[in-house]
Amino acid sequence: MLRLSRELIETNERMAEDATQNPETEIAEMRAARQSTLRATAPGMEDHLYKIHAVLDHGFVRVVDYMGDDAAITQAARVSYGKGTKSVSNDEGLIRYLMRHSHSTPFEMCEIKLHVKLPVFVARQWIRHRTANVNEYSARYSILDREFYIPSPGDLAAQSTVNSQGRGEALAGEEAARVLEFLKTDSMLCYDHYEQMISQDGQMGLARELARMNLPANVYTQWYWKTDLHNLFHFLRLRADAHAQYEIRVYAEEICKLVADWVPFAYRAFKDYRLGGATLSASALDCIRRMLAGEVVTQEASGMSKGEWREFEGLIR
Amino acid sequence: MLRLSRELIETNERMAEDATQNPETEIAEMRAARQSTLRATAPGMEDHLYKIHAVLDHGFVRVVDYMGDDAAITQAARVSYGKGTKSVSNDEGLIRYLMRHSHSTPFEMCEIKLHVKLPVFVARQWIRHRTANVNEYSARYSILDREFYIPSPGDLAAQSTVNSQGRGEALAGEEAARVLEFLKTDSMLCYDHYEQMISQDGQMGLARELARMNLPANVYTQWYWKTDLHNLFHFLRLRADAHAQYEIRVYAEEICKLVADWVPFAYRAFKDYRLGGATLSASALDCIRRMLAGEVVTQEASGMSKGEWREFEGLIR
Amino acid sequence: MLRLSRELIETNERMAEDATQNPETEIAEMRAARQSTLRATAPGMEDHLYKIHAVLDHGFVRVVDYMGDDAAITQAARVSYGKGTKSVSNDEGLIRYLMRHSHSTPFEMCEIKLHVKLPVFVARQWIRHRTANVNEYSARYSILDREFYIPSPGDLAAQSTVNSQGRGEALAGEEAARVLEFLKTDSMLCYDHYEQMISQDGQMGLARELARMNLPANVYTQWYWKTDLHNLFHFLRLRADAHAQYEIRVYAEEICKLVADWVPFAYRAFKDYRLGGATLSASALDCIRRMLAGEVVTQEASGMSKGEWREFEGLIR
Amino acid sequence: MLRLSRELIETNERMAEDATQNPETEIAEMRAARQSTLRATAPGMEDHLYKIHAVLDHGFVRVVDYMGDDAAITQAARVSYGKGTKSVSNDEGLIRYLMRHSHSTPFEMCEIKLHVKLPVFVARQWIRHRTANVNEYSARYSILDREFYIPSPGDLAAQSTVNSQGRGEALAGEEAARVLEFLKTDSMLCYDHYEQMISQDGQMGLARELARMNLPANVYTQWYWKTDLHNLFHFLRLRADAHAQYEIRVYAEEICKLVADWVPFAYRAFKDYRLGGATLSASALDCIRRMLAGEVVTQEASGMSKGEWREFEGLIR
Repeated sequence: MLRLSRELIETNERMAEDATQNPETEIAEMRAARQSTLRATAPGMEDHLYKIHAVLDHGFVRVVDYMGDDAAITQAARVSYGKGTKSVSNDEGLIRYLMRHSHSTPFEMCEIKLHVKLPVFVARQWIRHRTANVNEYSARYSILDREFYIPSPGDLAAQSTVNSQGRGEALAGEEAARVLEFLKTDSMLCYDHYEQMISQDGQMGLARELARMNLPANVYTQWYWKTDLHNLFHFLRLRADAHAQYEIRVYAEEICKLVADWVPFAYRAFKDYRLGGATLSASALDCIRRMLAGEVVTQEASGMSKGEWREFEGLIR
Repeated sequence: MLRLSRELIETNERMAEDATQNPETEIAEMRAARQSTLRATAPGMEDHLYKIHAVLDHGFVRVVDYMGDDAAITQAARVSYGKGTKSVSNDEGLIRYLMRHSHSTPFEMCEIKLHVKLPVFVARQWIRHRTANVNEYSARYSILDREFYIPSPGDLAAQSTVNSQGRGEALAGEEAARVLEFLKTDSMLCYDHYEQMISQDGQMGLARELARMNLPANVYTQWYWKTDLHNLFHFLRLRADAHAQYEIRVYAEEICKLVADWVPFAYRAFKDYRLGGATLSASALDCIRRMLAGEVVTQEASGMSKGEWREFEGLIR
Repeated sequence: MLRLSRELIETNERMAEDATQNPETEIAEMRAARQSTLRATAPGMEDHLYKIHAVLDHGFVRVVDYMGDDAAITQAARVSYGKGTKSVSNDEGLIRYLMRHSHSTPFEMCEIKLHVKLPVFVARQWIRHRTANVNEYSARYSILDREFYIPSPGDLAAQSTVNSQGRGEALAGEEAARVLEFLKTDSMLCYDHYEQMISQDGQMGLARELARMNLPANVYTQWYWKTDLHNLFHFLRLRADAHAQYEIRVYAEEICKLVADWVPFAYRAFKDYRLGGATLSASALDCIRRMLAGEVVTQEASGMSKGEWREFEGLIR
Repeated sequence: MLRLSRELIETNERMAEDATQNPETEIAEMRAARQSTLRATAPGMEDHLYKIHAVLDHGFVRVVDYMGDDAAITQAARVSYGKGTKSVSNDEGLIRYLMRHSHSTPFEMCEIKLHVKLPVFVARQWIRHRTANVNEYSARYSILDREFYIPSPGDLAAQSTVNSQGRGEALAGEEAARVLEFLKTDSMLCYDHYEQMISQDGQMGLARELARMNLPANVYTQWYWKTDLHNLFHFLRLRADAHAQYEIRVYAEEICKLVADWVPFAYRAFKDYRLGGATLSASALDCIRRMLAGEVVTQEASGMSKGEWREFEGLIR
């Protein structure tokens, strides 16, 4: 069911090779091929199409295609024949209204397709968002490049010891140097052996689908990833959050910039209501009402646990 | 959570009114607004954009937007930087290969958004396909039009009595006339009462969300429906099938024509491998092998039940 | 693809008939058949199994099966071998933590299967929640019963004229009487004609799949509906909300009671953080901070629109 | 949003430790705790509950919970009140009918929850099946064990050179020895450095979420994986197939055995119609008809490409 013909494997390899050798030629070619369309077009997004937006040391995000714009959201909300209301202010008001009241289906009417290059351990977090379409570079059929994520020294965070997050301040001195040395030499060593195992020079060569298991999780992979705007916002809310792991957050932040240029009204609403907003419990809302009425509320009298109270205080002070 | 403001309700109504009064003006306006894009563009689909394709007596299918083309499928299959292989024959070969071996993810890289007007009983079947995005005209906030599906006399099928399908030959004579009379007068009567119940002329007027319950299932609704090509093919395989109910099949057949113009390679592969193909059981494959080797296989010796054998014979004779 | 054999149709009919005639015998039989299991068992839910919980005039909710309990949530959160922490207080604390921080996957580890009887216009809202498994009674193959939802007089709400909700105060007097009369007589008339059209007494009989289109949306249908706890909570948050339509809200409220007995820790957390909670925007949080610091904030100075401010005030006063 | 409290981290670690030290005690405890239930119970599955089914060198599959049995499938198909038809032969016939005609929703009414331990490169393939619920052991918060998949010598397959599959005959002699040496020593070396990097002995210690990136893809992880029977069959059809990678196929085969004991009717139907069946194209069906009518059909006259013809011949000879 999942086999690929030899011809296909060869094509894959030739393509991968081409891409390595002259991606910019290909891209320049595509960027030159303007075409006429009757579809909704987002000028801010057209400027980003096919451009490489670098992330981490070897990664990138690139918009391959998109469907819809702000007007497509309001158009679906109205299920009307036309473009919706005529004045811009109305459109933004409606979009804010939809976002505020969790009317999510109109946002599903926009779609984006990204080409992403990312370390495998980041890909493993990312793929947990299931409502997306994915085509990943296959290490069963193709050979992975010698490219590994090596953090810059400032990002070599220690395990956190003082709060609930996974990451504390940056390592320094000898400890940092030793970590970098481990990451670099282990990556290179594992890749050397990967190459030696699959080599067909004087030997049969191990199957690629097996040899890949020797590569550590900082090796880069790439995929096409396609999702709708509602699910993208859900992804961004979780992954552009301050508590997300740095290495996925930088991808989310880069995508945020693209979305801001694509659907500016929807992005502003998302930023205000989701990224910068917070969900308060019944107890927390009750406390706020009491505090605004002049009561001095303590944790003990709040109905919240110590952990909840600490988070609550962080939010309102 | 689901309420809409009065302002929004008014906008909805104005829009619905506009649409009823001058949809063709709106459409002409949109069709005139050609724009330049760097995205993959399918010329065959551009010609269909916004055009009304009539289905049944008042229904239609209309393409509102699309993403991708045949090349987008092969591009994703290769996760390469460029447009994929250069020759058309290779692209079609690869697409056939993917379809034949159920490699479905590259087909998910194309997306289509349709505006559909359809009777409620058809909508109820259609919505069971869950992997799609939907925005339906809301009868909680807006007033449904006086439009009902009344079958043409030739489509007034009797309950089947001779085979396993739900539908036999067409009713005739007095019986057909009586059925048509029931369908027409009940629709009109129910709609008259719907209007009288919601009327605010000299009375409060029943809430629309309640009044709608008086409308029979042949009333027309409309929605925006967006899905990817893989899931669309799944929908079409089930609903363009000869055993699907006629009233949904005509929508599926209309969509088939649009898809054939949008992604001609993928559609041809779909037609050969899915629409015109069949899945055979291990027992059936075994029978074919025996028959090709010269054995005369009977139902008793086939390992199949009578029902299976009948279906099998229908397939190979 | 979708046809059913005559044998199957007959079985369907016999079953439907049995159900109408002696559901309680069947249920009593099932309730008597206690079995031994090693699976996680929720005593509070066992008591509800197969019991009819009446909703509206002819509808019901009935638990057919369930998987997991509160401990199954924490067990998955820890991906450990055992039952999780040993003390009850820890389990509840962890569940509240997961709910507060939108760690949704452990809640997906519980599953519920319901048998629901409901009017078609409610089913049409309900089915929009796509992440569920559904098997609905088929009016293509079976005959629908003569059962229609007729609101009790107190639920005959007028279209709202003073606020953003769809529903105002109840109709009264002659207007109410006329509405009830329309709903009742139209239902009966349409059903009479439905029966006459499908009758095979001295005529061929219209196909059931066609005849059903004459039935208004207050006719009852039924289905098996299966979903996981995370998606059920999402459904309940939207449909047990004060702004949901009354006729679906009563179903949601009935399910809430079942869930409270099934997974008491999770339900309490859901009630505090979701049902009774609210999501505040960045602007709203900023206003609260300023107000708690002593500032008198007006709508004009709040950064919120009039509509947002009104909702905000409703929340904190 | 995704942070975990220090308390939770500690709990996680203690649990992981417990699991390593005395999983069998925990399991024995659970297996002893028989409870009474009114739910549908599958005796064949009760025997498997919590038992470790070993796969590969350190992996396993273990049933944690299940919902439904064969009767639950037919019950949903009939949407009836009772247990469905009374005779076993009818139930199996109906299940075969549903499978043959792709009526998938009744199979969605059964659910299974597995605890699986598997190498990361297998997990990466597995997770592509999106319609499942997953809770994976978190290497952001917990420390992975020193356990790596090292193939047995007979499974050290060479890259295929003669056909379309990824895997040829086993390596031998010095080449095999060198591959095993690489896999073993690289795993150990990377793990040594992983431990040294996270150590807080005389140093700060690198964050676990970073250190994990040094571990190669043959390291073991574990998760809870929950899915419905329809989607499980889809997974098994792809992964128990002869062309699936050996290392995931052995998991699929183990699960097949469990399903055969859980829902014997459904599994037999799956085996006959899906696992052992094949989908033929319109061209292939046409060829079979011509061949059965006595024509000698060649590839040139078949309407199929050389590749398709080769696959077709493999199927019917």
